[in-house]
Amino acid sequence: VIVDRLLSYLGHKKDLQQKKILITAGGTREPIDPVRYIGNRSSGKMGYAIAKAAVERGAEVTLVTGPTVLAAPVGVKVIAIETTEQMRLAVLAAFPDTDIVIKAAAVADYRPTETAPQKIKKTDDTLTLILQKNPDILKELGGLKKPNQLLIGFAAETHELLTYARQKLVQKNLDMIVANDVTAPGAGFNSDTNIVKLLYRNGSSEELPQMEKDKLAHVLLDRICSFV
Amino acid sequence: VIVDRLLSYLGHKKDLQQKKILITAGGTREPIDPVRYIGNRSSGKMGYAIAKAAVERGAEVTLVTGPTVLAAPVGVKVIAIETTEQMRLAVLAAFPDTDIVIKAAAVADYRPTETAPQKIKKTDDTLTLILQKNPDILKELGGLKKPNQLLIGFAAETHELLTYARQKLVQKNLDMIVANDVTAPGAGFNSDTNIVKLLYRNGSSEELPQMEKDKLAHVLLDRICSFV
Repeated sequence: VIVDRLLSYLGHKKDLQQKKILITAGGTREPIDPVRYIGNRSSGKMGYAIAKAAVERGAEVTLVTGPTVLAAPVGVKVIAIETTEQMRLAVLAAFPDTDIVIKAAAVADYRPTETAPQKIKKTDDTLTLILQKNPDILKELGGLKKPNQLLIGFAAETHELLTYARQKLVQKNLDMIVANDVTAPGAGFNSDTNIVKLLYRNGSSEELPQMEKDKLAHVLLDRICSFV
Repeated sequence: VIVDRLLSYLGHKKDLQQKKILITAGGTREPIDPVRYIGNRSSGKMGYAIAKAAVERGAEVTLVTGPTVLAAPVGVKVIAIETTEQMRLAVLAAFPDTDIVIKAAAVADYRPTETAPQKIKKTDDTLTLILQKNPDILKELGGLKKPNQLLIGFAAETHELLTYARQKLVQKNLDMIVANDVTAPGAGFNSDTNIVKLLYRNGSSEELPQMEKDKLAHVLLDRICSFV
C-alpha cells in the first residue's frame, strides 16, 4: 500500500506495460447525401480519457475515433473514421493483436439504405428515409474473442439502464460493461464528469460516485487490471 | 488609394461602424431521439471569419451559430442554437434591428416529424424516418426585408451550382448570394480556403479566385459596403 501511494505521487503505476489496448471513442456519422448525415451524440471525452490513462500506465494504445473536437492524447496511435462500417473495419484489423478492447464509442446503429451521390433538393414537403441496421461491432468481437482477450463495453441509456446493460453484457460476451444514464445531471455526453455502474461477467456489480472522466478512466483501468 | 493602403497596414477600415450585422454559421442538428440526430456538414469557419472581419471593421455583430469547434470571435455577441427552429427564432428576434444579414449557416432543411423522448432500441432490421421540411429562414427574411436592410445568402451545392444559386437569389429576395461548389478541392466544408462566385440582385456576377476564408470574409464585406 505504501509503495502504491508513493507511486501515485511520483506518477502512474506501469501496470499495463506490454499490453495492447484498443479503444474506440466518439460518435459516427452515416451520410444521407454529401451534406446531410445521421449522427450520434458523443463528445469522445470518455474514450480519450481512457486512452490517455492507458498510455500513462504503460500500454500500447490504438484509438479508433469518430469526429470529435479533442486533441489526440500524446503517445496514442489514432485512427480517424467517420462511419460505423469504417470503425468496424479498423477494429477488426487491430483485434487479433489486441489484449484489451474498450468500446467507449457511441456508434450510429442505423444508416440510410442508400446514400444520394448529390445533395437532395428540398422539393417535397416530406422526405422518407429508410434506415438499415449497422453491423454490431461489439457483438462481432464477442464472437471472435479468445480466452486471453478482454472485452469491455459501454451502455449509454435513457431508461431501464441496468436491464439493457445486463442484456448487453451477456449477449455480447463482455467481461465488463460500464452503464451510464445519459440523462442524469453530471453524466453523459459532453459532461466532464460521469456517473456509472460497473457490471461484471460473474454477475457482480459496483456503483461508482460521480467523478471526473479522467479519474474514472483510471478507476476503470484499475478494475481491468484486476482481471489480467 | 494611398490612405486605403496605409489603413490596411495600420488596421482595418472602419467602414461598418454603427452597422448592426447578423451572421449565422455552422450546421444545425435535428434530434431523432435523445442520442441520434440528423446533422448538416458545416464547420462554421466561413461564418466565423465574416463575424471576425465585420467586428474589425467596426460593426456591431450578432452571430447565431450551430454546434462548431470554433472559439467565438472577440467582440461578437454569440447566440448558440442547435435546431433550425431555434436558429429561426433567434434570427427573427434580432432581424428588425439589423442592417445587414449574412446567412452563412448550412441548416438541416428536414427534421424528423416526431422526436422520440427515449433512445430508440435497435430491435428492427430497418427503421423508417419520416422527415418534414423545416421553415425556410432565408425566404422568411426575404419577405420581411425593408428597403434599408441587406440580405446575403450562401448556396452550397454539389451540382448545377449557378442555376440553383440564381433561383435562390430571386426567390428569396436576396441582395447577393455567395455560391460555392462544396465538392471542389479547396472549397467547402472544413476547408480553410474557399472558391466562390458572387451573384448580385441586378443580374451581374463575379468569380473570385481560391482564397483563405479570412481574406474572403473581407472581400465579401467590401462588396456589401459598396451597396450600403
